[in-house]
Amino acid sequence: MLADVQHVVGYGPYVNRVPQREGLTRHASGNTVEVDRARLALDLALAGERVAVVSGGDAGIFGMAAAVFEAAEDEAYAGVPIRVVPGMSAVQVVAARAGAPIGGDFAVMSLSDRLKPWSLVEQRLRAVAEADLVLAIYNPASRSRTTQVADAQALLLQHRSPDTVVVIGRDVGRAEESLTVTTLADLDASSIDMKCLLIIGASGTRVTGAGQVWTPRFAERSRAGS
Amino acid sequence: MLADVQHVVGYGPYVNRVPQREGLTRHASGNTVEVDRARLALDLALAGERVAVVSGGDAGIFGMAAAVFEAAEDEAYAGVPIRVVPGMSAVQVVAARAGAPIGGDFAVMSLSDRLKPWSLVEQRLRAVAEADLVLAIYNPASRSRTTQVADAQALLLQHRSPDTVVVIGRDVGRAEESLTVTTLADLDASSIDMKCLLIIGASGTRVTGAGQVWTPRFAERSRAGS
Repeated sequence: MLADVQHVVGYGPYVNRVPQREGLTRHASGNTVEVDRARLALDLALAGERVAVVSGGDAGIFGMAAAVFEAAEDEAYAGVPIRVVPGMSAVQVVAARAGAPIGGDFAVMSLSDRLKPWSLVEQRLRAVAEADLVLAIYNPASRSRTTQVADAQALLLQHRSPDTVVVIGRDVGRAEESLTVTTLADLDASSIDMKCLLIIGASGTRVTGAGQVWTPRFAERSRAGS
Repeated sequence: MLADVQHVVGYGPYVNRVPQREGLTRHASGNTVEVDRARLALDLALAGERVAVVSGGDAGIFGMAAAVFEAAEDEAYAGVPIRVVPGMSAVQVVAARAGAPIGGDFAVMSLSDRLKPWSLVEQRLRAVAEADLVLAIYNPASRSRTTQVADAQALLLQHRSPDTVVVIGRDVGRAEESLTVTTLADLDASSIDMKCLLIIGASGTRVTGAGQVWTPRFAERSRAGS
């Protein structure tokens, strides 16, 4: 897809991963201006250019795809065709590095309250915890959001065992990647920043002798009763 | 990875996608014998062979990864190293074809009660519906499971609007792929089989003039209040 476009639009670090070539203009923008960035792409497309908007991971999972559709609600862009190409998302890479922690039913949430109220985040965390779903957490913290991980941890501990398995993936997919396996009680919220993705296990999630994490496909609760 | 192994083990249709070459033995097995299949792979590895276990989609998401760890709990296999490689999962491909339906928080569930009681499936469906998460449903039906989609639909309708957007992906990623956009009320449960993946929208999920489906990153509820 990238070979076929005249423009690449996206957050700077992602745009910079696209090799420069003749006939390609790269438009790098700052973080948290997703809709402005999408409008730039749509304006270029409206002018007859072929444009790719890039995200890290899967553009459809907390990436640029929804922002492009949001911007495209403006009637001016009604004729612009949009095609989404899937990619490998952070939860999949962290899960694979850890073993098979999302081997059962799971939920994927952003912990950011930039676009939704914290009360809704809490409601969803509670629902996921009560339903014993594995939970992958994107955007756990940022420079300006420093309390959400501790708040989520306290909330989850009301419903989940302290020894619930937690996987912390940091910079996964890069040279400096690291993986930490801990528990919900021992999770050090102050160590989590924007480079981390968390996977909170279900009741059945376990750690092998070799330190790998997996969640049985069968439900722990049914096994206990059978 | 496949170029480096002496054996490929998996469900027949997936094994058959791996091109035959000298020095490679392909072990195709039937469906629903995941742990037997995993044991075969572990036995081969224990004998010093290099083995790949293949799944469709992402082996870590309702694929073979968890089954391999399940079989590897047997102490006989304690020394066998296991490495998981992520792949593109059905939910991502269906989502990309549709637009950006999983652009907000979402859950991923298997509707099969082969490995967990139906009561737990119902509990999770209810929690996901009440928390207004987008829901991707794997394994909605099979030859022997023909009532789950209608049951899930009835349950979801207790918590979600009848006009909730529903995406049905069938055979996605293959030549005969098709995509249907409908609503929770109009979903024809009898049309769903094992080749389908469903995405049930959240309250904010919408359809564009061009028929594409997307879920805003912002929460509908917060917008209504602001």
